[in-house]
Amino acid sequence: MQAEIISIGSELLLGHTINSDAALVARVLAELGIGLRQVQTVGDNRERLESALRQAANRCDLIITTGGLGPTDDDLTKSAVADFVGAPLVEFPEAARMLREYFGEREMSPNQARQAYLPEGATMFPNNAGTAPGCAVAFGEGKRVIMLPGPPRELEAMLRESVIPYLSGKARSVIHSSLIRTFGIGEGKAAHMIRDLMEGANPTVAPYAKSGEMFIRVTARAEDAQAAAELAAPTIAEIRRRLGDVIYGIDVESIEAKVVSLLTAAKKTVATAESCTGGLLAKRITDRPGASAVFQLGLVTYSNKAKEDALEVPGEILARYGAVSPQVAEIMAANVRTLGRADYGVGITGIAGPDGGTPEKPVGLVYIALAAPKRAWLREMRLKGRYPGRDWVRERASSIALDMLRRELEGLPVIIEEN
Amino acid sequence: MQAEIISIGSELLLGHTINSDAALVARVLAELGIGLRQVQTVGDNRERLESALRQAANRCDLIITTGGLGPTDDDLTKSAVADFVGAPLVEFPEAARMLREYFGEREMSPNQARQAYLPEGATMFPNNAGTAPGCAVAFGEGKRVIMLPGPPRELEAMLRESVIPYLSGKARSVIHSSLIRTFGIGEGKAAHMIRDLMEGANPTVAPYAKSGEMFIRVTARAEDAQAAAELAAPTIAEIRRRLGDVIYGIDVESIEAKVVSLLTAAKKTVATAESCTGGLLAKRITDRPGASAVFQLGLVTYSNKAKEDALEVPGEILARYGAVSPQVAEIMAANVRTLGRADYGVGITGIAGPDGGTPEKPVGLVYIALAAPKRAWLREMRLKGRYPGRDWVRERASSIALDMLRRELEGLPVIIEEN
Repeated sequence: MQAEIISIGSELLLGHTINSDAALVARVLAELGIGLRQVQTVGDNRERLESALRQAANRCDLIITTGGLGPTDDDLTKSAVADFVGAPLVEFPEAARMLREYFGEREMSPNQARQAYLPEGATMFPNNAGTAPGCAVAFGEGKRVIMLPGPPRELEAMLRESVIPYLSGKARSVIHSSLIRTFGIGEGKAAHMIRDLMEGANPTVAPYAKSGEMFIRVTARAEDAQAAAELAAPTIAEIRRRLGDVIYGIDVESIEAKVVSLLTAAKKTVATAESCTGGLLAKRITDRPGASAVFQLGLVTYSNKAKEDALEVPGEILARYGAVSPQVAEIMAANVRTLGRADYGVGITGIAGPDGGTPEKPVGLVYIALAAPKRAWLREMRLKGRYPGRDWVRERASSIALDMLRRELEGLPVIIEEN
Repeated sequence: MQAEIISIGSELLLGHTINSDAALVARVLAELGIGLRQVQTVGDNRERLESALRQAANRCDLIITTGGLGPTDDDLTKSAVADFVGAPLVEFPEAARMLREYFGEREMSPNQARQAYLPEGATMFPNNAGTAPGCAVAFGEGKRVIMLPGPPRELEAMLRESVIPYLSGKARSVIHSSLIRTFGIGEGKAAHMIRDLMEGANPTVAPYAKSGEMFIRVTARAEDAQAAAELAAPTIAEIRRRLGDVIYGIDVESIEAKVVSLLTAAKKTVATAESCTGGLLAKRITDRPGASAVFQLGLVTYSNKAKEDALEVPGEILARYGAVSPQVAEIMAANVRTLGRADYGVGITGIAGPDGGTPEKPVGLVYIALAAPKRAWLREMRLKGRYPGRDWVRERASSIALDMLRRELEGLPVIIEEN
């Protein structure tokens, strides 16, 4: 089965909203082994939507639309799709009942009530995270349009609760897709090391870089899930052998997920003291459910005064070496470890920019210290090229801290120099 | 001038990467007054890319491609575009020089070196944030293809440094687009209040909801920037009059940007004590350059022990009311204000889930307290419908805290009940 996505919304074409819906749907299609041929994004424009539907119908069996179903959308998607498949919009009693339940005592506008109208003969998908239901409707020879709501939270719930069960079993082959995640190696170098593997057709091997990390996707296609996984396994093992310990996980969600699961397994705890990252490291660790068992204390000490008062960094050290120094990072890590009664303490101090740099201590210079039960170590991060922005510096520095924790917990060698 | 974007990359169709590039390019086109007709996303597949190029060329004057230029992409985009416009790929000496400079002493693989090849006659755009240069190349009658790199950081730099100057002046009309940002009102209610304004054609008025906030975009088109801004102004004023103080800003970047600028203007400071939001509030405030002047101290106290040790919340209060209680939120706010010697203190305690809820204190219950110089106030956040996920609870709770700070700093009435 081949699918296409049509994303609808003028806000997408004005660049105000990023099309995360397409990625959510794409991931589900990949899981189901349904090939996604193309994504088309059009504005709230009936004529262009019709043209996109016609083109997609010529190329594929399954069209999935996202957006244009809400109370402010004037039925754009529904009426265009209804005309396209040749079915009138009729009220679905179950959808009307759910809408009334959602609104309770509150009054429903006519536009709100119109959300219960769907193409006649459609399979309705309830919206358990919002108001506009979705649906699947057949057309032509075994083809289908599935209409889904635009708000990502509603879309995600509907995909899980209705779309996956609906589509399961309709696909002929299954994809196994594994994501090998690395930290501390560049795209060019990694690609060079696995060049020959990238030439295979099944499984395919595709490296790509994102947010300073380097990912390698291995994708195999076979008749069933087990056969696809078995086809992928030797290639994954070979990549693991070649890249070694820069791989922090395979099919884990993120480096913070890896760190939280390592801490949980080891029954160890961490405390953080952050200056330039301003709570980002604490935020990333506590993004994970279950972080409460491993995260003891986080301090965000921006000013020297806060470093002295809350973290007990001696004023003379701050005066002698400056707040952005290896010495201060190390004391922050050690003191927050003690204060938080944690097994590991992390201290981060640096200059995220855009202002605050000097020739000696330029923007982008960050010291990251880890205090562990038996040793302490430090990494210095410096920008190689142009200033990539405040967010990048903060993200990168917190990732290095997480990777230091990961290496410490896995008993891997210390890294001194930033690659 | 009408444009289309073609985004290239199999990772986009596997759903692993969200197409943020299209939004970056779309925003630049809107600023330049160039209408964006459609976005097509295709995989690393030569035939489908060619088909997308043909279709786009039939519909518009300007095609912008993103992705497929890097050293691991085997020249897919460049060779397809070169064939499409009928120009061979040739080495650009300036691009080759920049590549050699980038690599310095390091060796360059043949694929790395191929990045200096572009269609003959193209205008080269240097890549100051990476290696693969972009370019613009003409075809047909006054039509153009612009090829840009996929990594967002490289794309963003190239847009600003090369593409905007290149395209400026080529557009006939200019768009003025203002974004009115609100917090604390639903999409349906807001749309109802401005229904009549949404029927206009120039300016257009389009509300949409995102991450629990409600935005209204007002877009006017005219011959020059001033005329477009003047056309939009009365509608913006009318929306401001109707919606009142739920509007936290117009064309500001975010509610945290608004809060940091209010604090800066008032020369006031803030300190935060977070439990369930785990540093997200501190992170959002310190996302802003200049936050160092207004952010005093952040504490992330997940455990009761940390609340007692670092925040001096009395153990008997924790035992009597529980960690998730109005009393504890208020003490957290007051004590972090004192500890951080700040003008404002914020305390957040709640249950982000998915676990940890009880019938009395369900998942999603969060208490947010603000300690200000002359008063203290508290908001209680409860989920109305189904559990929307940990990220949503944390995001929403930190947004409420920011809105409380905003209202306090603007001298607006206190809100007690969560809408």
